[in-house]
Amino acid sequence: MLDIIPIHPAPSPAANAPALLQEIAAALDVLLLSGRRHCIDLGSLPLSPADRDLLRETLGTGEIRMELEALGNSRIEETGVPGVWWVRHSSEDGILLTESLEVCHVPEIVPADTTDIAIGLRRLRQRIAVPESGGH
Amino acid sequence: MLDIIPIHPAPSPAANAPALLQEIAAALDVLLLSGRRHCIDLGSLPLSPADRDLLRETLGTGEIRMELEALGNSRIEETGVPGVWWVRHSSEDGILLTESLEVCHVPEIVPADTTDIAIGLRRLRQRIAVPESGGH
Repeated sequence: MLDIIPIHPAPSPAANAPALLQEIAAALDVLLLSGRRHCIDLGSLPLSPADRDLLRETLGTGEIRMELEALGNSRIEETGVPGVWWVRHSSEDGILLTESLEVCHVPEIVPADTTDIAIGLRRLRQRIAVPESGGH
Repeated sequence: MLDIIPIHPAPSPAANAPALLQEIAAALDVLLLSGRRHCIDLGSLPLSPADRDLLRETLGTGEIRMELEALGNSRIEETGVPGVWWVRHSSEDGILLTESLEVCHVPEIVPADTTDIAIGLRRLRQRIAVPESGGH
């Protein structure tokens, strides 16, 4: 029984970032044409420090930072290229679980979901219908 | 020439919050039915500390906090009622300029704008087309 031996060649400086940047540009084109979002899982790619530096430098820093506390902690940063978001999700112990670049108008996790709004509205109505000790 | 004299009666405890909460519930209904967003300018209302406390307690705290650096600083907090966002905009000197409750899936200022994406994509393409000293 032969197992597949994973081969991880030592990456040369910035071996993968240039292709990623081309993928991002293509994904922005698709977003503009069709509204379709695209997600690049950085955890699944062998990124050298030089790759990360090139990505960071080329994409730059945007105006928005978000923190989301739900099943751990998510940090979402807009890059300097509008529509490209750097998303990190960590466990409650602060261990990085996933890291991705999302190409979209707004990361999927941010907008309030219709079902959640309906549930929240029902709860709000219950709270404000009984302001002191009675209500109608 | 008679000027209009603004009258500010001393607000009784939580005089305005109950009506605001009813307005928010109605706005959530509209959001669910038609997708229409609604904004309540808190700066234009006489809110007593008791009003603020009642709003805070009833709406609660949500999972998302955002900071946006553009023409000053915006802080956006999701409340515990999904679809209701507490938005504060301050000048660069830290002076609070506007404060509002936005009832929407996501505050209007957050999603990347199509025009901005198109401009950003053009710049990105220029950067990645000339990786070192040449390019095509």
